[in-house]
Amino acid sequence: MKALQYRTIGAPPEVVEIPTPEPGPGQVRLKVTAAGVCHSDEFIMSLPEDSYTYGLPLTLGHEGAGIVDELGEGVTGLAVGDSAAVYGPWGCGYCYTCSKGQENYCENAATLGITPPGLGSPGAMAEYMIIDNARHLVPLGDLDPVQNVSLTDAGLTPYHAIKQSLDQLVPGSVAVVIGAGGLGHVGIQILRAMTAATVVALDVNEEKLGLAKEVGAHHAFLSNAEAAERVKELTGGHGAQAVFDFVGIQPTMELGQAMIRVGGDQVLVGVGSGTLPVGMLDKPWESSIRAPYWGYRSELFEVLELARTGAIHVETEIFTLDDAPKAYEKLHAGALRGRAVIVL
Amino acid sequence: MKALQYRTIGAPPEVVEIPTPEPGPGQVRLKVTAAGVCHSDEFIMSLPEDSYTYGLPLTLGHEGAGIVDELGEGVTGLAVGDSAAVYGPWGCGYCYTCSKGQENYCENAATLGITPPGLGSPGAMAEYMIIDNARHLVPLGDLDPVQNVSLTDAGLTPYHAIKQSLDQLVPGSVAVVIGAGGLGHVGIQILRAMTAATVVALDVNEEKLGLAKEVGAHHAFLSNAEAAERVKELTGGHGAQAVFDFVGIQPTMELGQAMIRVGGDQVLVGVGSGTLPVGMLDKPWESSIRAPYWGYRSELFEVLELARTGAIHVETEIFTLDDAPKAYEKLHAGALRGRAVIVL
Amino acid sequence: MKALQYRTIGAPPEVVEIPTPEPGPGQVRLKVTAAGVCHSDEFIMSLPEDSYTYGLPLTLGHEGAGIVDELGEGVTGLAVGDSAAVYGPWGCGYCYTCSKGQENYCENAATLGITPPGLGSPGAMAEYMIIDNARHLVPLGDLDPVQNVSLTDAGLTPYHAIKQSLDQLVPGSVAVVIGAGGLGHVGIQILRAMTAATVVALDVNEEKLGLAKEVGAHHAFLSNAEAAERVKELTGGHGAQAVFDFVGIQPTMELGQAMIRVGGDQVLVGVGSGTLPVGMLDKPWESSIRAPYWGYRSELFEVLELARTGAIHVETEIFTLDDAPKAYEKLHAGALRGRAVIVL
Amino acid sequence: MKALQYRTIGAPPEVVEIPTPEPGPGQVRLKVTAAGVCHSDEFIMSLPEDSYTYGLPLTLGHEGAGIVDELGEGVTGLAVGDSAAVYGPWGCGYCYTCSKGQENYCENAATLGITPPGLGSPGAMAEYMIIDNARHLVPLGDLDPVQNVSLTDAGLTPYHAIKQSLDQLVPGSVAVVIGAGGLGHVGIQILRAMTAATVVALDVNEEKLGLAKEVGAHHAFLSNAEAAERVKELTGGHGAQAVFDFVGIQPTMELGQAMIRVGGDQVLVGVGSGTLPVGMLDKPWESSIRAPYWGYRSELFEVLELARTGAIHVETEIFTLDDAPKAYEKLHAGALRGRAVIVL
Repeated sequence: MKALQYRTIGAPPEVVEIPTPEPGPGQVRLKVTAAGVCHSDEFIMSLPEDSYTYGLPLTLGHEGAGIVDELGEGVTGLAVGDSAAVYGPWGCGYCYTCSKGQENYCENAATLGITPPGLGSPGAMAEYMIIDNARHLVPLGDLDPVQNVSLTDAGLTPYHAIKQSLDQLVPGSVAVVIGAGGLGHVGIQILRAMTAATVVALDVNEEKLGLAKEVGAHHAFLSNAEAAERVKELTGGHGAQAVFDFVGIQPTMELGQAMIRVGGDQVLVGVGSGTLPVGMLDKPWESSIRAPYWGYRSELFEVLELARTGAIHVETEIFTLDDAPKAYEKLHAGALRGRAVIVL
Repeated sequence: MKALQYRTIGAPPEVVEIPTPEPGPGQVRLKVTAAGVCHSDEFIMSLPEDSYTYGLPLTLGHEGAGIVDELGEGVTGLAVGDSAAVYGPWGCGYCYTCSKGQENYCENAATLGITPPGLGSPGAMAEYMIIDNARHLVPLGDLDPVQNVSLTDAGLTPYHAIKQSLDQLVPGSVAVVIGAGGLGHVGIQILRAMTAATVVALDVNEEKLGLAKEVGAHHAFLSNAEAAERVKELTGGHGAQAVFDFVGIQPTMELGQAMIRVGGDQVLVGVGSGTLPVGMLDKPWESSIRAPYWGYRSELFEVLELARTGAIHVETEIFTLDDAPKAYEKLHAGALRGRAVIVL
Repeated sequence: MKALQYRTIGAPPEVVEIPTPEPGPGQVRLKVTAAGVCHSDEFIMSLPEDSYTYGLPLTLGHEGAGIVDELGEGVTGLAVGDSAAVYGPWGCGYCYTCSKGQENYCENAATLGITPPGLGSPGAMAEYMIIDNARHLVPLGDLDPVQNVSLTDAGLTPYHAIKQSLDQLVPGSVAVVIGAGGLGHVGIQILRAMTAATVVALDVNEEKLGLAKEVGAHHAFLSNAEAAERVKELTGGHGAQAVFDFVGIQPTMELGQAMIRVGGDQVLVGVGSGTLPVGMLDKPWESSIRAPYWGYRSELFEVLELARTGAIHVETEIFTLDDAPKAYEKLHAGALRGRAVIVL
Repeated sequence: MKALQYRTIGAPPEVVEIPTPEPGPGQVRLKVTAAGVCHSDEFIMSLPEDSYTYGLPLTLGHEGAGIVDELGEGVTGLAVGDSAAVYGPWGCGYCYTCSKGQENYCENAATLGITPPGLGSPGAMAEYMIIDNARHLVPLGDLDPVQNVSLTDAGLTPYHAIKQSLDQLVPGSVAVVIGAGGLGHVGIQILRAMTAATVVALDVNEEKLGLAKEVGAHHAFLSNAEAAERVKELTGGHGAQAVFDFVGIQPTMELGQAMIRVGGDQVLVGVGSGTLPVGMLDKPWESSIRAPYWGYRSELFEVLELARTGAIHVETEIFTLDDAPKAYEKLHAGALRGRAVIVL
């Protein structure tokens, strides 16, 4: 079968022919229908050899959807022909944390060498992929896989980040989204669908501010020195209850700190490399700062339900598997509007 | 000054002339701008003498808004000329429950004889009213008092009922509103603004079902024998996560029990007189049933913020104080669309 | 191998010889070390033929612990020789509810015919038992299986019931436990370990009140007409924040309703057959009534951790498998102190 | 009357004679029975003139208790002769945040110049003090004021810090207290009373480690380089769910960061001057860091209830008002065991 693989440190990914895998006991083979392109793919391919830990060759694709093609021995709860999305942050399934479906924080994954598809295990950018356990598939039903495959990361990650702050976002509160790209423009829609908060989008790119308004942001400002002041004005001088930073570089983190209110949540989602000095007197009382990772299994169900009601829609640009390297080029150039999807 | 008073058990309320009250230390006098007409007024006026406990004569009006007119000694935090809404479920302010702003459940109100305006204390259907403590006023700012006065009960009551169930109402869940009248049609809007749940409205009146759809219900069914089945169908056979019963009579309570799911919340808001036999085997596991009363002080701020964003709008029919008795006649006849408001 | 089976409607269970089972793919065979005797076993054996739905013959035992003896194909995360407790409320593992580890409320179990061991599937009162999936085993480590096997139900059930009410149980609150038997005496210990609430135990049996005091109840009263009054006195007239009813018959439910406070939780755990008329005016505002079932997978981890710290201890009486029928006789006679355990 | 005042920047506080104050409308005069000595007093008296903002002369004492001595006009809910504790973080009482009793985060206090007693307003180290509003008094009943006055800060502050993390502290979790002094030794007791977590105390002082064990810590280690490793060992390598840092200097903050687990809470309570660089890759996923301030009004009720049940006990050393300057000397020398209390 064909697959898109990262084979040489520093080189672009290549379309190659590899053997079609067979599912072992408890596993499921998926005929892939769609796979999403993500900044983290680019991030890991930019790592120098000594900090790259994902194995070579690596079949890319941690956002995947497909049709159940063959069940390994002992698999129940699924039938050949079912359409499903892949829950990516695989865990062991047995530890305390996994027992709550919080596999993104599995206590044993590192020790046992369990890795997500496309980030260690063979990913979704191939004609077929192996799912290690049926619980890592969430039914899509009649949801369009091409349109929705990106939700497995670009939907689930902001959803999880936002859900932990929902209690804050009472009517009258302000939620700020920094970075209105692939994840941010979905985050805006999630905030609008699930809260009555006023949603403010910040970006350095005017076109992305336009997208932010289109998908529901009440306000969209340039992410510059005046932004903190403008958010303060919107909030009677008090600041935002939550800032979701989908960029995570030094300036956006400082901006977040400058506009958060007493008791507010500053949430780092983007894998920038900023750091912020935090002390008792550096930020408002009881404001907190945290960096969540991906999301829970149950939350993927919830994100897909949001899509089913029409509340969230991912802007997508479509590529064939053969053209997948071009999608990464366009991503690198910052020339994508929304999210690239490889259709198989 | 003029006031609408209930003076004789069983007789309709009358417009009378009474002395204008003076605020004592810590009190505030409000020049009333608007007062809402509520089913509970009618309910207490229908009580026989031996169960009527609200005092006579009683100036009606537990939904009130006005302009601060005079401050008693020692009052801070307010200025003459401020526009404010009245938080009605007055508590002592000192007990543990009041210390959280949950004055609707004050531990001392019964013992101390503290009663809400219009339900014991002189209410808002008068040119002036006395507020026992400045904390019972919530700033309206530039919100229209006539349009929004009803939110102090018809908004706050469904808001409180819904807020206690928000955790249930994840994407993919179904919330049912039984009774799309004064409170119910606001409840529908609150659910739409604060959750991604599918909202189903049930009523026996086709016109109210129309109103329900207008204000955002995804589905509106006749509240009859098939309704439970239709809700089950919408939920893969599992039932609704929450049923808000704004009627509270025997048939609506039975309907609620028939359509609630495992772990769901059946919430009685309407002051009907139904009772439901509840035992371990009579309803789904871990489903609960509760009857909340009015709302918290902080929740009135939140409801007014919802109005400020345009997320909720009360259908109102306007009357002068002289015509207030007619408003009650129309209410009694079920001929109001939405809520009646007395404008002063 | 030997097993204790219920074979004939209305007859006592019998020790019989049956074939030793083999684990299929994904399954695990356990060499049973201990199995708990429960009131629900007696309850199902008392059912007439037309309401008995658990299959015949039925190997009893829904509380089980053992040593991993053989792994089916594809099983990971466990090793032969591990000591483990059985999580009993088996679900499908794939639905939304199971994705949170809330398998006790699996959406598909009824449809798919999934039943707990000892309540449909072959249970733990046998030399060997088959676990349908490794996730249904929770590691015991060095915890004594005999001493702790009962926690899989008699610990998990009160733990789940109490955990849903923890937010209520602030310092100064009162929690009432009705019925200080197998589940109740564990419930008392859980309340003492996890809250600063004052714990009141009620029972009709003086000896059980003694046990209640021994395991930590602050007060232990006879469960009679004065009990509600005594609880009211302890709470300044306001009533208890939570009543955990481990009996569930008409008088205990009425007692619970008589002593619950505004906003309190009345929780039905015992499988009595009481029913309570519930309406808006029949119980304090916002008090709720619910009947939970067993517990979550993650909660079994938590209960075992409680045991590990020494915070809970189950009173046990030990029987051999051959003597197991006698354990049920003694249970029926109300002659057990705490919980009977079959040791294998 | 006599009062202890800070009168000259850099000089020690002095006992002086000042006029006895009269309560205005809405105010209450308290005959002080006890006042607590706190590190923050010392902190503000160490500030240079240009950063000192509390006014001069300043009557010290933000921990106070007394007997209601005279009621201003319009005050209800209290009677002369009542024994009460002072809730110190005074707010306006009218804003949204105050409406929930979260006056420590009042939105208007800074603008309106509202300051706590002893930290701007005249404090409790005087024969009489004025309480600006009756809601700032919480009934003591028969609780000993001398023994419990410190709970108004040294109890309320750790209580609030811990309560925000209670959901984390499930059985099997580990909570670390850094600094077993005035606040820390109360924090240990609160953790023991309200959770089943394993409590680890860290300090640089062996005597304080002894106190930590006496008041209930399961483990007490020297707060040195090995401490993080020892906590990791106790938690299977995963780290603590919560670290309460009652010191807040650079080394304790780094220690906290080194031992927190994925999703854990690092809570800064002590007014040290440390700062920690925080970025996505600097600390475990979803761990958060926050610095709370004092506590909510309702939480003071809860803390006093904890004391009433005997669950918390403050180590106190008693001084007369005339000897109060000596208490500050001893505090400065680190020679106090627990908390100093001025008895009047």
